[in-house]
Amino acid sequence: MTIRFHKNDLPDLSNYNVDAVAIDTETLGLNPHRDRLCVVQISPGDGTADVIQIAQGQKMAPNLVKLLGDDKITKLFHFGRFDLAVLYHAFGVMPEPVFCTKIASRLTRTYTDRHGLKDICNELLGVSLSKAQQSSDWAAETLSPEQLEYAASDVLYLHRLRDVLVGRLARENRTSEADACFKFLPTRSKLDLLGWPEDDIFAHS
Amino acid sequence: MTIRFHKNDLPDLSNYNVDAVAIDTETLGLNPHRDRLCVVQISPGDGTADVIQIAQGQKMAPNLVKLLGDDKITKLFHFGRFDLAVLYHAFGVMPEPVFCTKIASRLTRTYTDRHGLKDICNELLGVSLSKAQQSSDWAAETLSPEQLEYAASDVLYLHRLRDVLVGRLARENRTSEADACFKFLPTRSKLDLLGWPEDDIFAHS
Ligand SMILES: Nc1ncnc2c1ncn2[C@@H]1O[C@H](COP(=O)(O)O)[C@@H](OP(=O)(O)O)[C@H]1O
Ligand SMILES: Nc1ncnc2c1ncn2[C@@H]1O[C@H](COP(=O)(O)O)[C@@H](OP(=O)(O)O)[C@H]1O
Repeated sequence: MTIRFHKNDLPDLSNYNVDAVAIDTETLGLNPHRDRLCVVQISPGDGTADVIQIAQGQKMAPNLVKLLGDDKITKLFHFGRFDLAVLYHAFGVMPEPVFCTKIASRLTRTYTDRHGLKDICNELLGVSLSKAQQSSDWAAETLSPEQLEYAASDVLYLHRLRDVLVGRLARENRTSEADACFKFLPTRSKLDLLGWPEDDIFAHS
Repeated sequence: MTIRFHKNDLPDLSNYNVDAVAIDTETLGLNPHRDRLCVVQISPGDGTADVIQIAQGQKMAPNLVKLLGDDKITKLFHFGRFDLAVLYHAFGVMPEPVFCTKIASRLTRTYTDRHGLKDICNELLGVSLSKAQQSSDWAAETLSPEQLEYAASDVLYLHRLRDVLVGRLARENRTSEADACFKFLPTRSKLDLLGWPEDDIFAHS
């Protein structure tokens, strides 16, 4: 596995002449107002990943933000709802258009309620992911080799997962519903930041 | 209050040269697969309403369907999620574009968790609605005068409510979030019919 490590930003976008980029983030916790962004991982889908360490209080990352804001490039996430909120809060850019493997899994793998990244990598790709580093100190000044490897592994399979899930959505005739969900996702994330994190805004009561 | 009663369909669309129509439905219960559509109420926003009784097994209502399918006319609902599912299931037409007063209320009246039609009519318009007929036999061959009046009252105030809520959304800078919710609402209703009625499709787990 090739991991390119950077501080603050990508050096350039030369690896990202692609139509889809996989993205994940690591934070100090699950509350984007409280818990800062520590790491952004991205992959062009060729089995390599860039792991970018974000400094405390960092407000700019011009190359990364340019990539996130490029509406010709689909942004692949697993549970993008969280990463979109984190990235929008940190850099003021809302990555669009989006494909979320968790939503695609929910819409197609109706035979299970296990829609974690580990579960779908295992079932759909036969790849076994370790989640041991998930709860670790991502704000550490020096990230451990295990953390870097974990961070990278969270984006390395999203392109292949998307391909499988696109096929499942088509097979079950749910492509247009998935597309509508992906289109709404940035608003769902903004509502999280605005103060509706738990509510289902579409519920009766 | 002027109520025009019809069986099966509107006689014509002459009262509906409008940019927004208020719509509500009455059914035999809350499960659109089990509980049939009994009544469709609509109002052009001039203080009058059409109450249309739908027969068991009725599959067509050409004038009504034409109105519902007219994308130049905004469809005003209170908790449109339910009515959209019912109308799509009954007639195969998805009314769009949509404005939902419950969602607009959730996004603006953050000082309360009371977003019922009765609550918002009371607070925003000073109008007191009776909900006494809400749970009644809407499949009865002859609807009572109380039922007709109740059915009509559910659409008579939606235009005025929309006007107030549009102002609140603008004041709180939440118009674009509301618009995105309204745009997603037809998909949310289709997912209800497809078998995801309770799940928040955007939830982590
Ligand atoms: N309420 C929540 N519970 C668990 N994980 C959550 C969460 N909200 C956001 N997440 C994020 O969702 C990801 C896990 O998703 P899943 O459980 O489906 O595999 C985690 O990302 P990381 O693995 O990058 O830390 C975690 O940060
Ligand atoms: N789970 C639910 N609980 C209560 N009302 C529901 C519901 N799902 C749909 N509805 C509909 O939502 C409307 C009431 O909304 P509210 O409580 O916000 O005023 C009712 O319409 P009717 O008044 O036309 O019967 C009812 O049919």
